[in-house]
Amino acid sequence: MSTLHAVVMAGGTGTRFWPASRTARPKQFLPLADGKPMLQATIERLAGLCGEDQIWVVAGKKLAKPLTKLLPSLPKERLLLEPEARDTAPCIALATAAIAAADPQATMVVLPADHVIAPVDAFQAMLRAGAAIAQDGETLVTFGVAPTFPATGFGYVECGEPLAGHGGAHAVRRFREKPDRATAESFLQHGGFLWNSGIFVWRVDAILRAMRATDPELGAAADAMLAATQKGEKSTLQRAFLKAPKRSIDYAVMEKAAKVAVVRAPIRWNDVGNFPALGSIAPPDANGNVAVAADGGSCIPLQSGGNIVYADGARTVALFGVRDLVVVAVDDAVLVCPKDRAQDLKALVEHVRASGRADLL
Amino acid sequence: MSTLHAVVMAGGTGTRFWPASRTARPKQFLPLADGKPMLQATIERLAGLCGEDQIWVVAGKKLAKPLTKLLPSLPKERLLLEPEARDTAPCIALATAAIAAADPQATMVVLPADHVIAPVDAFQAMLRAGAAIAQDGETLVTFGVAPTFPATGFGYVECGEPLAGHGGAHAVRRFREKPDRATAESFLQHGGFLWNSGIFVWRVDAILRAMRATDPELGAAADAMLAATQKGEKSTLQRAFLKAPKRSIDYAVMEKAAKVAVVRAPIRWNDVGNFPALGSIAPPDANGNVAVAADGGSCIPLQSGGNIVYADGARTVALFGVRDLVVVAVDDAVLVCPKDRAQDLKALVEHVRASGRADLL
Repeated sequence: MSTLHAVVMAGGTGTRFWPASRTARPKQFLPLADGKPMLQATIERLAGLCGEDQIWVVAGKKLAKPLTKLLPSLPKERLLLEPEARDTAPCIALATAAIAAADPQATMVVLPADHVIAPVDAFQAMLRAGAAIAQDGETLVTFGVAPTFPATGFGYVECGEPLAGHGGAHAVRRFREKPDRATAESFLQHGGFLWNSGIFVWRVDAILRAMRATDPELGAAADAMLAATQKGEKSTLQRAFLKAPKRSIDYAVMEKAAKVAVVRAPIRWNDVGNFPALGSIAPPDANGNVAVAADGGSCIPLQSGGNIVYADGARTVALFGVRDLVVVAVDDAVLVCPKDRAQDLKALVEHVRASGRADLL
Repeated sequence: MSTLHAVVMAGGTGTRFWPASRTARPKQFLPLADGKPMLQATIERLAGLCGEDQIWVVAGKKLAKPLTKLLPSLPKERLLLEPEARDTAPCIALATAAIAAADPQATMVVLPADHVIAPVDAFQAMLRAGAAIAQDGETLVTFGVAPTFPATGFGYVECGEPLAGHGGAHAVRRFREKPDRATAESFLQHGGFLWNSGIFVWRVDAILRAMRATDPELGAAADAMLAATQKGEKSTLQRAFLKAPKRSIDYAVMEKAAKVAVVRAPIRWNDVGNFPALGSIAPPDANGNVAVAADGGSCIPLQSGGNIVYADGARTVALFGVRDLVVVAVDDAVLVCPKDRAQDLKALVEHVRASGRADLL
């Protein structure tokens, strides 16, 4: 098997965790689970799977400083900075170019930095199984999580024929965008559908060929990035990145590529899309209150139930007689909203901006 | 007229403003109105009425440090420290002893430190009118506020005959404790009832005589405090204070004294008993949200109404889709509770103590 590299995509901005998340401290910097920043937990989850020198982080250049602070041992050359956010396809092209320049047949795992995943051994086993499939130098491998409810917020992967010699893996029949409720329910009844986890593995030569085949504009940009990386031409690399189409890797490549497989992921997986999602990763108290506390934060509820609390920095949130609220308390800001409004938090963030308080974003 | 002194009672502890109020920062230290600590506003409201050298502050000895910090120009000898909280009768006896020792016929105004009062000129005029009545050296004068609703949280004063030569003043027929709702409504219908404001004026010789007559135990303690003050015997003074019965001045003296008058107070008066009371002293926004912000605090509401927010120290409270809540954000703690539970806040404070977090009280 060719050398395994891991690319952690840490570019997310995430307004859905405001005011805990900020422009310079997006979601992946928050200790939403495991008691440590999600990005750090993501990297630690790779220990033993690939060498420390094969771990890459991609993020917007605005995050360079906080990333260097969070990950002091990550060498500068493996922190890939995007000149601007252009969705996942250009991000992955940039990382592919960096790895392929050093090792043209390397195997490459791509992971979001802000998912909660356990247990680690099952997670690593599934990545190894995917990497084995990818050694044909053709197949792009994605990982699918068995759905536990008819989620409308995730994409789905429809399984096709089982892959000979690779237990638990299937050819992908089709990718399905975020469905409506009825469609999601039919997926669950049918059975052959998995949540698209956003985790991938492939050989760098395979993804480059697939980019050229499915999205020539993206393929050309990737080739230009590879050439610029090989020559060490930084400004050419940046220009090539900025020419890459602003598309997701699913839309640009995965949905159209010739050979795509899905490996069933026997893991607990949560993309923690908003504050209420903390309710499914942190243990509730007897009244269903969930508190995520960092750096000495705490919660004291009385006659209160079903609330989600995030408190950091030796700050205590006291709840008295309230139900089903999200309460977030950080150094300079507090948010109070009902749980069922938390998915609309972007509207509040825009209102904060419109109120002339961009300093709080 | 004898020299007018003013005694500000600043001993309140007030758990009903937790977590803004703390053991070492009770309600009278909070800028709940006027943008400055209530005690400071109370003292400033006396400017021109009595000399700066005739202003006295009484409070528990635990508050000595914060009081000295808040009122740096108040000389030590006019800050009277209670060895322990024993209600208003011993507090007033202590202040009476201090003033009487220097000036046996002085006139003395007694004021709570934590009420909101306006306008200042009407307030001072009413105190002068009361002081004029008190010059007979017998009458104890209280001030009554015309009730605007059938409050069950205040005591009432029932007016008797008008006082000849003192327009707006009446003999007191009877003091009435906090009534139930029906009784309060009957008071309002009847008309001759005023809210007991907790503000008094009398001559020191008159109140000493009244204490001896109505509550001999209190009278004896007051005499002992006076003698100890005259001799400069601090420990004797403390012992005398601790022997005084733990009673309110209303119960110990006012309800029983021979000559008590009430002066109608043509002022806006609010004792700001709890967070929802801020709704009647601070201007609401178009949706009925009231924000009291100190030291750079602010509030950003969206699709929210009827909330009460207290934020201090460059802290922003963002509300999104919530109604009729109290949200308090201070350095180390946040409180969220419905407005209609705010009067029960003592239960939460006890729960915080029981949770081993007395450090937050």
